Amino acid sequence: MSKDDILKHLMRSKTGFVSGGKLAVQFGISRTAVWKQIKGLEADGYTIEAIPSKGYRLIELPDSIVPAYVVRGLKTRIIGRDLRLLKEVVSTNTLGMDLARNSAPDGTVIVAEKQSGGKGRLGRTWISPKGNIHLSVILRPLIPARIAPLITLMGAVAVAAAIRKLLGLDAGIKWPNDIIISGKKAGGLLTEMSAEADRVHHVVLGIGLDVNMDPMVLPSDVRARSTTLAKEAGRRIDRSLLVREIILELDRRYQLFLADRAGVLTAWEGLNITLGKQVAVSGAGESLTGVAQGIDDEGRLIIRLQDGSLRAVSAGDVTILKTQIRNSKS
Amino acid sequence: MSKDDILKHLMRSKTGFVSGGKLAVQFGISRTAVWKQIKGLEADGYTIEAIPSKGYRLIELPDSIVPAYVVRGLKTRIIGRDLRLLKEVVSTNTLGMDLARNSAPDGTVIVAEKQSGGKGRLGRTWISPKGNIHLSVILRPLIPARIAPLITLMGAVAVAAAIRKLLGLDAGIKWPNDIIISGKKAGGLLTEMSAEADRVHHVVLGIGLDVNMDPMVLPSDVRARSTTLAKEAGRRIDRSLLVREIILELDRRYQLFLADRAGVLTAWEGLNITLGKQVAVSGAGESLTGVAQGIDDEGRLIIRLQDGSLRAVSAGDVTILKTQIRNSKS
Repeated sequence: MSKDDILKHLMRSKTGFVSGGKLAVQFGISRTAVWKQIKGLEADGYTIEAIPSKGYRLIELPDSIVPAYVVRGLKTRIIGRDLRLLKEVVSTNTLGMDLARNSAPDGTVIVAEKQSGGKGRLGRTWISPKGNIHLSVILRPLIPARIAPLITLMGAVAVAAAIRKLLGLDAGIKWPNDIIISGKKAGGLLTEMSAEADRVHHVVLGIGLDVNMDPMVLPSDVRARSTTLAKEAGRRIDRSLLVREIILELDRRYQLFLADRAGVLTAWEGLNITLGKQVAVSGAGESLTGVAQGIDDEGRLIIRLQDGSLRAVSAGDVTILKTQIRNSKS
Repeated sequence: MSKDDILKHLMRSKTGFVSGGKLAVQFGISRTAVWKQIKGLEADGYTIEAIPSKGYRLIELPDSIVPAYVVRGLKTRIIGRDLRLLKEVVSTNTLGMDLARNSAPDGTVIVAEKQSGGKGRLGRTWISPKGNIHLSVILRPLIPARIAPLITLMGAVAVAAAIRKLLGLDAGIKWPNDIIISGKKAGGLLTEMSAEADRVHHVVLGIGLDVNMDPMVLPSDVRARSTTLAKEAGRRIDRSLLVREIILELDRRYQLFLADRAGVLTAWEGLNITLGKQVAVSGAGESLTGVAQGIDDEGRLIIRLQDGSLRAVSAGDVTILKTQIRNSKS
């Protein structure tokens, strides 16, 4: 039992309070030992309220990502063994691509408090204020370029799983790369690569998560479709712990991916909120409407069009339609 | 009629000689006008023998790629509008990727006399002595990454067509990217890209052609499988003209590719020497033997295995088997 275990309980409590007695029983330690861990957390910058009849409650977190918290007890095989935490960067993905070209090792992680030129898919901007998570990881898988989209799916699975595990939120994935909570977007992934057709030289998997930001910094149209983890959880999130959880999930799932590519598809299907839905897909100069039927072994979305035919889509924006669109013949 | 037209006739002559009288008739000019063009070529560094009963014969070419000859009369829409000729470079592809990151325009061409670190597919070395052609072109097509292998096919078609047109040699293509003459390798292509899954940022199409090199610089095992254009043509090749012809072909075929992707497959099929053959494919951790049946719309080679099933191969080395392999049941 460590400070982290206590912290996780404090963060996941529905009421905010966690009884010191229950913690003592659960971990098989004395209430005094629990209290000592609480004091340790306070020394680390956490503010914790203690009310005798209710227990402990987390009031205030350290307001930056704390390297010591990210790496403490972090035993990973590939991801995050080289970890770079930065106050500000233009784009963690661009820096990742630069570092990868200059031989940064497989699994190098870059985390930044802020991005001045954060990137979304298709050349879009990713608004990246302080309070959120901007994380990129350099990967050097021995795969052909056509398999690279599976890395995005693997990353989305890892992020959704980390959010579920640490925060108990019902995070889902909208194809290909959006993290969705309560029907709103809380994050996204951007995979970039340097490759020849036969093989990937390196991939940079970028993760942007709206965590503790003030939603008012977003343009109103974006804000209407967005949420933050803090809003969904009803409290500020300890980003150090979340970064660590994401790194742990990435490490585990990346190794699974290398051993068994199909496994990532199964995991993705279990967390996705796209399949079975009526969707509109726009991009690549065309617009399609149909039912999202499945994904194929290269991560393409299979759509059943209204005429019954199937189409595989590898790029584009997906909108999940609320209303069932009727076949014009009916 | 220009010096180039005369030069093409001199280079394509089977006997080496071209009659001044025939040239005059063909171009509808006087023999004196032909003679003036010949003098112009000599001023440019060509050595031309004139024997009254036989005509003109090209004896000696300028021994470097001459920018003036490459660009003279070059009217292309995309390829080579920005042209960089270098004495030596580590790798035209690596320089191309660097320039592309720094906003070099679509169609920028880099040609180098020598490469000190020439690259082949799959991390191999491409031996790049003076006398050959090392050419890379930066392309910015609006396509998803999975379509990028078609750029390699398009490039191979352009190179084979340029060799056929200028030198009259029977150049063919071995899937995916080898230029083959008389069953031996005369060149190869290496396509690199920076991309996200949804779209290519930029592609660098690299072309390496063994032209006038001394084959003795090659290791003996490579030499046994290789040829040079000079050897096949029976004379030294004017690389300036060949570079120009390649640029012209690339310009035309790249525009066709952007307008109609399927067209490149048809053109490739017309020049390929792989389809219908018994082949062995190794790579991606496995080895397959079967009949090369066709290519699909993403440029993958379709192989019919001995059990009759079909497999699509996106990466690997293809060996064309001389002997028919019998089905073990027969």
